Amino acid sequence: MKKIAVYPGTFDPVTNGHLDLIKRASYFVDKLFVGIGVNASKATLFDLESRMKMLKTLTREIDNVEVVSFKGLLVDFANEVGAMVIIRGLRAVSDYEFELQLALMNRRLNSQVDTVFLMPDERYSYLNSTIVREVARLGGDVSSFVAPLVADKLKEKFKGE
Amino acid sequence: MKKIAVYPGTFDPVTNGHLDLIKRASYFVDKLFVGIGVNASKATLFDLESRMKMLKTLTREIDNVEVVSFKGLLVDFANEVGAMVIIRGLRAVSDYEFELQLALMNRRLNSQVDTVFLMPDERYSYLNSTIVREVARLGGDVSSFVAPLVADKLKEKFKGE
Amino acid sequence: MKKIAVYPGTFDPVTNGHLDLIKRASYFVDKLFVGIGVNASKATLFDLESRMKMLKTLTREIDNVEVVSFKGLLVDFANEVGAMVIIRGLRAVSDYEFELQLALMNRRLNSQVDTVFLMPDERYSYLNSTIVREVARLGGDVSSFVAPLVADKLKEKFKGE
Amino acid sequence: MKKIAVYPGTFDPVTNGHLDLIKRASYFVDKLFVGIGVNASKATLFDLESRMKMLKTLTREIDNVEVVSFKGLLVDFANEVGAMVIIRGLRAVSDYEFELQLALMNRRLNSQVDTVFLMPDERYSYLNSTIVREVARLGGDVSSFVAPLVADKLKEKFKGE
Amino acid sequence: MKKIAVYPGTFDPVTNGHLDLIKRASYFVDKLFVGIGVNASKATLFDLESRMKMLKTLTREIDNVEVVSFKGLLVDFANEVGAMVIIRGLRAVSDYEFELQLALMNRRLNSQVDTVFLMPDERYSYLNSTIVREVARLGGDVSSFVAPLVADKLKEKFKGE
Amino acid sequence: MKKIAVYPGTFDPVTNGHLDLIKRASYFVDKLFVGIGVNASKATLFDLESRMKMLKTLTREIDNVEVVSFKGLLVDFANEVGAMVIIRGLRAVSDYEFELQLALMNRRLNSQVDTVFLMPDERYSYLNSTIVREVARLGGDVSSFVAPLVADKLKEKFKGE
Repeated sequence: MKKIAVYPGTFDPVTNGHLDLIKRASYFVDKLFVGIGVNASKATLFDLESRMKMLKTLTREIDNVEVVSFKGLLVDFANEVGAMVIIRGLRAVSDYEFELQLALMNRRLNSQVDTVFLMPDERYSYLNSTIVREVARLGGDVSSFVAPLVADKLKEKFKGE
Repeated sequence: MKKIAVYPGTFDPVTNGHLDLIKRASYFVDKLFVGIGVNASKATLFDLESRMKMLKTLTREIDNVEVVSFKGLLVDFANEVGAMVIIRGLRAVSDYEFELQLALMNRRLNSQVDTVFLMPDERYSYLNSTIVREVARLGGDVSSFVAPLVADKLKEKFKGE
Repeated sequence: MKKIAVYPGTFDPVTNGHLDLIKRASYFVDKLFVGIGVNASKATLFDLESRMKMLKTLTREIDNVEVVSFKGLLVDFANEVGAMVIIRGLRAVSDYEFELQLALMNRRLNSQVDTVFLMPDERYSYLNSTIVREVARLGGDVSSFVAPLVADKLKEKFKGE
Repeated sequence: MKKIAVYPGTFDPVTNGHLDLIKRASYFVDKLFVGIGVNASKATLFDLESRMKMLKTLTREIDNVEVVSFKGLLVDFANEVGAMVIIRGLRAVSDYEFELQLALMNRRLNSQVDTVFLMPDERYSYLNSTIVREVARLGGDVSSFVAPLVADKLKEKFKGE
Repeated sequence: MKKIAVYPGTFDPVTNGHLDLIKRASYFVDKLFVGIGVNASKATLFDLESRMKMLKTLTREIDNVEVVSFKGLLVDFANEVGAMVIIRGLRAVSDYEFELQLALMNRRLNSQVDTVFLMPDERYSYLNSTIVREVARLGGDVSSFVAPLVADKLKEKFKGE
Repeated sequence: MKKIAVYPGTFDPVTNGHLDLIKRASYFVDKLFVGIGVNASKATLFDLESRMKMLKTLTREIDNVEVVSFKGLLVDFANEVGAMVIIRGLRAVSDYEFELQLALMNRRLNSQVDTVFLMPDERYSYLNSTIVREVARLGGDVSSFVAPLVADKLKEKFKGE
């Protein structure tokens, strides 16, 4: 049986930590769906189309990765694409607790889908999209946190502020 | 002397975790006031009246429990009803820290009232009203997280979305 | 029905944090048993008799407190003295996790007995018997951590070292 | 390529939490090696032979699981059996930190092997072998924490104490 | 070489915990800049001018402290005033993780500036401006959390609510 | 006034994380005493003399660092060398809590001496002497965790095992 997994997120924008995790996850599954969650009530800096474009460009060399978007419950999305595994990255301890709550909730909602946690490289342990957006907004150099393509998009967004 | 306690919360909506805690707390006190905190600056999904109705219906078989609402400081509310104990549920570690801060602050505001922590059943350790509202909003099945009465109200709220 | 509780510990030796908790707990129960756990495989600085003597002396003015020792499972001890509540103090986050595990385990072993957590005064939040013994061993002044009676006993133990 | 994983531990003795994790892990890999770490400097309640026997008996119905023992570095053991994944269970937050340290260390020692974390069922979140041994030693009923076979062995060990 | 440090914050309003930290930090540096971060997108209760006035009044007796405001990245501000040290207070564990992320990020942005953590007095361990504002808003007595000057300003703000 | 600090530890053996911290700390103080705590009741792998030799060799190029050993209370040692600051490294959250307890205890024992926390480089966040000794004992390569000099000493210790 093929091992299919989903890696969900908002990716606003995708960071080097996300990319590190996608690469790691792609090694132990046959197919990895990177799922951009669409949540009408949550404002994002980049619209869905540009988040998807960035992710597609930056993962195009990994054969078994496919970028898609999804609405609704994560476990329903996993079901649709035939995934039995949800991949999540673990960083800080506070993340961890929230992740555990989500994973237990998802398991209750659909016991066929289990959550598996991976650790990003320690160089990325403190990285998240919120901090990256904030640094970019304040004119800081984000080139060691995101790919050049993303750094350019961020500069564009905040130029003139 | 009668042991009187208050169990404060927003209960938006009441979950099985809350109900488990109310039952546990009702065993060691003579009288338990479930206090719905009214905070004008915080938007809720259910209005005060329906939150109170749900709580009253679901606790009506526990003799020593009374559901009330309160404004202002929690320690003042405790004082008014003659309670010397505030009951709080403990779940995740991050909850715990916030709870400790609150409890120390409340003790400083009124040293006559002390906070006592209980643990819900482990089946409810990851439950909170925010996650329940989110799952309901996305069309998920919340029947193992809340009472049937509450599940129906949630379905009503989100139908048509 | 009378509310009976047990507060278990090793009390090697009793600290001001323990005494603060005993006083707090004595307010909300009708009867509080302070239970010194006897564990043959765990070496203590003070023998059972002197730990019991110190505790009895220091709590003799609290009418509803009784100091006893117990062997075996804590839930069995609670049962024997008719307690439906186990009292535990909460300090650091790491304590908290261990306490939660114990409480869930105890609930599983005997669902009639529930655990209730209290917070010591923040002045005692970092106090524990291990640190007190270590400071005393190194010749430090422990007079703000333990009662004078206990400070004297510690000085005696470590004099000549 | 076949997905091979190792699940290392001391298993002194194997608990229902371990068994739950082995079952979960066996779903997403082609082959799972349960590795009993042999550490001459760490005393165990059960000798290697009986720990292995219990594990083999209790996992014999899962086709792709094989129980083995190993000495030396975990990453070397993983290498030998051709595994690119180490499976670890996540429970408390304090576990988590230690696990993260180990995983980063192992990644540094061998970057070809990555660690993947799974969550046991929440009913087992507080279970560990140390607590099980302690409850059994005190004469408590461990039948809801371990398999009947293990409960019998524990009773045997502690009878007469 | 002179040791110059910055202590950044929003100080909305300054609490006794902040003042305790400023005093402690002023002992080990030659010059301490208290930097009020200006963030156009974050609403504050007190405007910049009154926050600065309160801080200046309450620190005027500490010779080597200077209160200033800054926009943009913290590390750029540190650079401008010649500081090689950022001072931060540590309280709860959840704070700590966030602080670590920030400190690592700042180190990456400017490796010449390092972050140093201090602990406030344990009496202030649970204090933060958000809780103080909330207590004041509900009509509670904040006189043991902030200086009299600040308590008066808070009363003024919320009178009539 | 000269800023003098102590950085206490067991250094059994010194790791790259310790060296990173010593370098960072040496920048903001005028004089840094690295203090090897001597505790007769705690067995170490390396004796005091060789731990001191390794530390002296590895820090000889930092002018304001001096390696010494001390017995008794840390605050008394700080006093003797005229230090008003204790330097400690922060890594995991569990470390952090223990560190906070120690720091509060030390402040209580001597309010003239305060504790200041630094973060090692994130590459060393998971490093500690215990893990290094364990890896060396199992024959693993420790060359990226400790200086070549220390790696050689470890190899010597464990050869023949």
